[in-house]
Formats: sequence, structure tokens, C-alpha cells
Amino acid sequence: MTRYSPEVLKSLATEITAAAGVSRDDASILADALVAADVSGTSTHGMTRLAIYVRRIQKGLIDPKAQIKIERERAATLAVDAGNGLGHVQAMKVLERMIPMARKAGSVIATIRNSQHFGALSYYCNKAADENMILLAMTNCEPAMSPEGGCQAFFGTNPIAASFPTGKGFHLKIDLATSVTARGNIIAAQKKGQQIPAGWALDPAGNPTQDASQALLGTVLTMAGHKGYALAMMVEALSSVLSGAAVGSAIGSMYKNLDRKQDVGHFFCLLDIDAFMDVSEFKDRMDAAIDQIKACRKRPGVEEILVPGERSNRVAQENLKNGVKLDDATLKELRDLCNEFKIPFDLAGAPVAGAV
Amino acid sequence: MTRYSPEVLKSLATEITAAAGVSRDDASILADALVAADVSGTSTHGMTRLAIYVRRIQKGLIDPKAQIKIERERAATLAVDAGNGLGHVQAMKVLERMIPMARKAGSVIATIRNSQHFGALSYYCNKAADENMILLAMTNCEPAMSPEGGCQAFFGTNPIAASFPTGKGFHLKIDLATSVTARGNIIAAQKKGQQIPAGWALDPAGNPTQDASQALLGTVLTMAGHKGYALAMMVEALSSVLSGAAVGSAIGSMYKNLDRKQDVGHFFCLLDIDAFMDVSEFKDRMDAAIDQIKACRKRPGVEEILVPGERSNRVAQENLKNGVKLDDATLKELRDLCNEFKIPFDLAGAPVAGAV
Repeated sequence: MTRYSPEVLKSLATEITAAAGVSRDDASILADALVAADVSGTSTHGMTRLAIYVRRIQKGLIDPKAQIKIERERAATLAVDAGNGLGHVQAMKVLERMIPMARKAGSVIATIRNSQHFGALSYYCNKAADENMILLAMTNCEPAMSPEGGCQAFFGTNPIAASFPTGKGFHLKIDLATSVTARGNIIAAQKKGQQIPAGWALDPAGNPTQDASQALLGTVLTMAGHKGYALAMMVEALSSVLSGAAVGSAIGSMYKNLDRKQDVGHFFCLLDIDAFMDVSEFKDRMDAAIDQIKACRKRPGVEEILVPGERSNRVAQENLKNGVKLDDATLKELRDLCNEFKIPFDLAGAPVAGAV
Repeated sequence: MTRYSPEVLKSLATEITAAAGVSRDDASILADALVAADVSGTSTHGMTRLAIYVRRIQKGLIDPKAQIKIERERAATLAVDAGNGLGHVQAMKVLERMIPMARKAGSVIATIRNSQHFGALSYYCNKAADENMILLAMTNCEPAMSPEGGCQAFFGTNPIAASFPTGKGFHLKIDLATSVTARGNIIAAQKKGQQIPAGWALDPAGNPTQDASQALLGTVLTMAGHKGYALAMMVEALSSVLSGAAVGSAIGSMYKNLDRKQDVGHFFCLLDIDAFMDVSEFKDRMDAAIDQIKACRKRPGVEEILVPGERSNRVAQENLKNGVKLDDATLKELRDLCNEFKIPFDLAGAPVAGAV
């Protein structure tokens, strides 16, 4: 599989997004977020999403010129209306506004309503960690999971994320959906004609199923049963109930509902490490914790204990050096978009220097 | 089993704690927290803990007169040294200090180091919800869980909690350990000579075990494997690394290490709902979400879908009306403490009015 230079991909994504009516500055924010996802190995949130965002802009379901509007503000809080703009762009603008507030007050919490799917939470968390801050981020998303005891999709996979700066050359990165698995894994099993593991999903009648097709008609289960249910509820309460966004099953589906906006809600809690202890001390303490965890006695057959974020950092290092892989479907979508907007599609001519 | 008046229990716990050298005001804070746990059905964090707190005070491992010390402060942050005081007392003092700060700045985050086991997180979260605020609380605790891939206890069961006010007569309450089960459930299985379910624990060599005794020598597993590991890591980073408390396996065991302080760390993130939307609107939105969840189509055999906090609210209503049950071991400990401190032990003479 050919590998592509992250810079070239970023430039292409910027061109396409700008051609769809987004300002060049905003387009480059989206492009950076998409390519960062591909680089770190979460390609499900990378370039593969560009086509649907453009499609939704074209259908008037995303406002490419939207401004963020601060509805309530105190020294350490922002209640933001994203104006139905691109999720990544609006979230980054909110985060940029939060950073000086956190520098001053020590911490700041923002809710964002009237937003969209905005990619991988860890993108924003890593940006904060670059500033020696900690961002705890949550978002609701389109319905996928049933509450414990139910069999109707109410919650999205409602993820939780936070990144912590370290002295190890990478941020310790937490980023997890509160579902037992990603819906994408069930779709993949269906395509391959494989069964899914027990405990992943229910059929539409609410019975446990290992049939991928039945699972896709039914609901994904919460991680760890009632515990995942409780966490999904917490994410929902903070990111949608408190923000004023659509709640639970009222969230629009990005791919299926091409007739209405999504109205997703996000929750950002940002804190300045220096308000609690010197950053250098914090990093030393993180490093010591990481060293102790990695030195734990291992389970039989385990070669190395990894800390959260370590594996994706290795993937990122490799992708930055050798270039990012894109699947054929995504390449086709990008080519089609280029044709549509009369933009030269010259990725094939630009493999990264280090690619073999 | 006899049921006892919460008020009488609170009064007794206050007397005993004060006799151990704690000021009357502080003693009543601890007593309130312990009885609240018994009332809401989490008796593992109730009166059954009083004896060990008193024992640790007597051994000089908890300072009964400790004051909280603010080490760093900004408009929306507090870094607190609990002075090795009683966890419940110091945490409530920090929360009381946070409430007017959150009223002003909209939100405030506190780390607390040099603390102890401080009971059920939801006690503090519910206090905040009573003020129309949301408290997101985390704490580390004595080692019980291994990191994914490891088989040495590093993390405590590192719980996460938050309560949300509603118009339903109870707070929606999230409170969960990031372990797959409480160690107490393994101890209970051992006492009954029963096997534990697969997936709960590892033996000391790191192999999965259903033998309760082997499990107690080994480690409890994180909930949902690597996801629970990531969440436990997040809790550790926020509540111990950032606070300056002991990290991971350095935390002292409350019952086993009767020669050193615990140095537990807590993380409190408090936000004022009114900084984001009117409280009445928030409650209406919470109620609507709850109604929708409860109205979801049910799985076969399920009679009612409950939201987090609903069951414990029902238990609390019953216990408030009929009185709280205490097990024989706890009653004996209380009687012994009364004898030791020459306090009349007259619980037996004071069943609640409504008890039958």
C-alpha cells in the first residue's frame, strides 16, 4: 500500500475544504485534525471523513462560515453555540479561547452545542498537553447504544479522553468510547461474513447476538454493562444536557440523516498544570508512574506492558517517517472531490521522502 | 435484622469520633458521611469503617486536628494539602471552600493530597447537586488492580463519580470503580467457599482464576480490559500525580499498613450549572432524558429500566423511613468503641419510629 506525506495530504484536504466554501484558515484546521488522526493510526477519524463533511456542507447541513458565539461567560466557564459549523474548527477555536483563560484562572470549562462530529477527542487533548495543560474532553454522538435493560439505541458511543504531558517524548493519552466495541468492528465482521464475539451487541428484539447483520439492526452494548451505561450517561449529561445540544436519540446521524443538522454537544475541561504544581515536577511524577507500570510483573505471554498512548505514538512515529496509508475507498473519494472541484489530484506523485 | 435510626447512628458516630480526639464539628462531618453511605445502601463505606479510622487516629496515622492548607490558588483552582487529616472532613472543607468560588468563576478544580480513604465519592457529589452544582470526583486508593498485561497490583479501584440534579426527587448519580468488581465481592465468595466468575481476577502468576483465595493473593482486573486500565490511569494522573499524593502502589493500605500514613489523593471538579444554562432548564432537560431512557424498548425479561442513582434512591427512602440495618460485626465494633471510650451504647433502645 502506497504511503503519502502527511504534509501533502494536509494541503490536499485544505484545498478541498476551502473549495467547499470554508475559509482557508478554517480549512487548514480541519485538514490538520484529519491528518493527525491518520498519522496516529485512528484512520477512522481521518481523511476518510472528509467526503461526508463536504457533502453535508453542500447540502446546507453544516455552515461553512459559522462563527462561535459565547452565550454565557464567567472567569472559568464558556457556554458556546458552535453555529452548526464544522466541529473540528469550532472546537479548536473554543480551545484557543480557553487556553489564556486557564492560564489566568487555573482552569476553565466549556460546553459546546450546535456542533457536529468532530473527530478524535485526543486531537484536542494533545494540543492542550503541548501547552502543558490537561484537557478532559467528552462528546455525545449519534445513537448506537441502549441503556442497561433496554434495546433501543439512545446513547452514542460517548467517548472520554484526556492527555497528560510526560518527559517520555509522547503524551500519555486516554481516549475511549464507553461502548464495548466500535460499530465499525461489527461492520467489518459483516463484510467478511464473520461472527462477532459474544457480549458485543443485541439484536433488535434485545437478545444477545453474534450475527453481525442482526447486531447492526440492533444495538451495541455499553462497556462493562451498567458501568459503561453510567459513564455514557455522565458524558451525555455533561456534553449534551448541560450544553443545550440534542440529547440521546435526538442526535442526527452523519451518514443517514442527510436532511437535518446533527446538533452534537461537547464538553471541555481544561486545567493549567502550573496551577497545581511545577510542570517539571508533574512530568517527573508522570515518568516515574510510567516506569513503575512498565516494570510490573507481566502476565504469561506478555512481552511488554504499554501505557495508554504509547502504541499510537509508535504508529505516529512510523507514519511521520514513512508516510500515511490510505485505503482505496478513501483515495477514490478524494479523487472524486478533486475532480468535482477541479483541484489537481497529485498525491500519487508525492510519496514521502522516507517511503520505501 | 434490627433497623436503627440514622439520627441515632449519627449521634453515636459523632460521640465516638470526638472521643478519639476530633473536634465535635469535624466529628459530625464524618458521622454524616458514614451514615449517608449506610442510608443509601453502600454500607461498605458506612459505619463499618468507623473502627479503622479511630484505630488509625490512635496509632498516630491520622491527625485528628489537621487543618487544610492551600498550597496554590487561582480564581478557579485550589491545590490542597489535607495535612493527613480525616479524608471525609478535609474533603468536605475543600468542597465548602470551592462552592463560592464556583458560584463566582463558574467552575473550580481542586486537587487534595496527603489524605485518606474518604468513603463514597457520591456523598460529595450529592452535596454539590444539592447546591445546583455538578461535582465530578475521582480518587486513587490502595493498590488492587494490575495494568493491562501486568499481574502486580498498581492501581487502586480508582473510582469516578458525578451527580446531576433533576426534578425527579433524586439526583442522577454516577459512582463506579474502574475495576471489574469490588474486592469485597471476592472476599464474600471466599467466605462462602464459592468460585468467582471468570474475568474478575488473576492469580499471583497472572493466570485467570475463579478461585477466590488465589484471586485475593493476585489482582482484580480492570473493567473492560484496556479501557478500564486507561480510565484508572486517568484517575491516577488527576488525583495522585497532579495532587502530589502517593502514586499507585505507594499508597498505604488502610487495614494492612498500620505503620504508615496512606497519602491518598483526590480530584474535585465543581461547576455551577447556572454558568451554562438556567438551573430550571437543566433539570427539565435531565428529566426529559430520564423519561426517554426509561421509555426505551426493554430487553426480554426486564421489567423496568433504571437510571443511575434510582435504585439507591429507593433504598435510601426505605432506610430513612424504616431505619438502617447494621451487621453484627459492625455492631460489635461500635459496642467495643463505646466501652473503650465510656460512651453509653444505647442503639438497641432506639429503633426508628417507623420500624416494624
